[in-house]
Amino acid sequence: MSEGVEWALHTCVNLAWVGPDEAVTTARLAALYDLSPTYLNKHLQALSKAGIVSSTSGPRGGFRLARRPEQVSLLDIVLAIEGPEEAFRCEAILRKGPGGSARVDYRRTCAISQAMHRAEQVWRDELASRTVADVLAEVDARFPDAGDGVRVGLAVTSA
Amino acid sequence: MSEGVEWALHTCVNLAWVGPDEAVTTARLAALYDLSPTYLNKHLQALSKAGIVSSTSGPRGGFRLARRPEQVSLLDIVLAIEGPEEAFRCEAILRKGPGGSARVDYRRTCAISQAMHRAEQVWRDELASRTVADVLAEVDARFPDAGDGVRVGLAVTSA
Repeated sequence: MSEGVEWALHTCVNLAWVGPDEAVTTARLAALYDLSPTYLNKHLQALSKAGIVSSTSGPRGGFRLARRPEQVSLLDIVLAIEGPEEAFRCEAILRKGPGGSARVDYRRTCAISQAMHRAEQVWRDELASRTVADVLAEVDARFPDAGDGVRVGLAVTSA
Repeated sequence: MSEGVEWALHTCVNLAWVGPDEAVTTARLAALYDLSPTYLNKHLQALSKAGIVSSTSGPRGGFRLARRPEQVSLLDIVLAIEGPEEAFRCEAILRKGPGGSARVDYRRTCAISQAMHRAEQVWRDELASRTVADVLAEVDARFPDAGDGVRVGLAVTSA
């Protein structure tokens, strides 16, 4: 998984802390953790394409969450960055083996492909069950000053 | 995940079908699915290093499973090929953020890192619960001729 996943997850949580009333520039979001603005912007564009963040231009422009934090799961963010493909690539090598056929969809019939698919599914279910709002609530409970720290770090005022 | 995972999973199942009494060369294992012998050999070396297969040299040499099929989980094979690292890379970017500290292990304290770790864990648990013997039993039940086809394809006689 690319470093972009970590960057995107933290950035979405930070945008949730900022709230919907203010937009934050890529430069500020990147500076918070000393990240490359160029690469972070690439990831923000992927999040935007997935409808997770939205951007506005102009002097007060920047990024904000496009949906409520409880409507953005960690899976949404991971798939926006990594793409929709499953981690296990089934190239259907059985097709060339004994009794193999070009007409069979081995992704559906191969016991190995199916077992790998089930594992992917439990992984996705786990990440789908957890939202940006959940992360925010957990961090707020454990580190009550964290949100304020992020807002000050981003030099925004809204909560 | 690399193509080696698919190759290694199928190869371990095939070695289970061959049984412990015969060794199979890389050339034969690769020819079964028209795979690159060079790359398959690389993956077989990784499986060997992980104690999943063992190799013998000489005219009747080759690879066989080093453990009983019920003692080899799909997770064992995946980790042998992909390495032990989790898919999500936590680079602890919080360290450079507001209130960040070089002394904190963010892999343990960060809510995002922990959520990604939990997802990895359910994925691993699922793959650990499934052995080569399970796959063999499922395929034997659904496709009773598959094992014979593989043994003929590999030109071995044992069952």
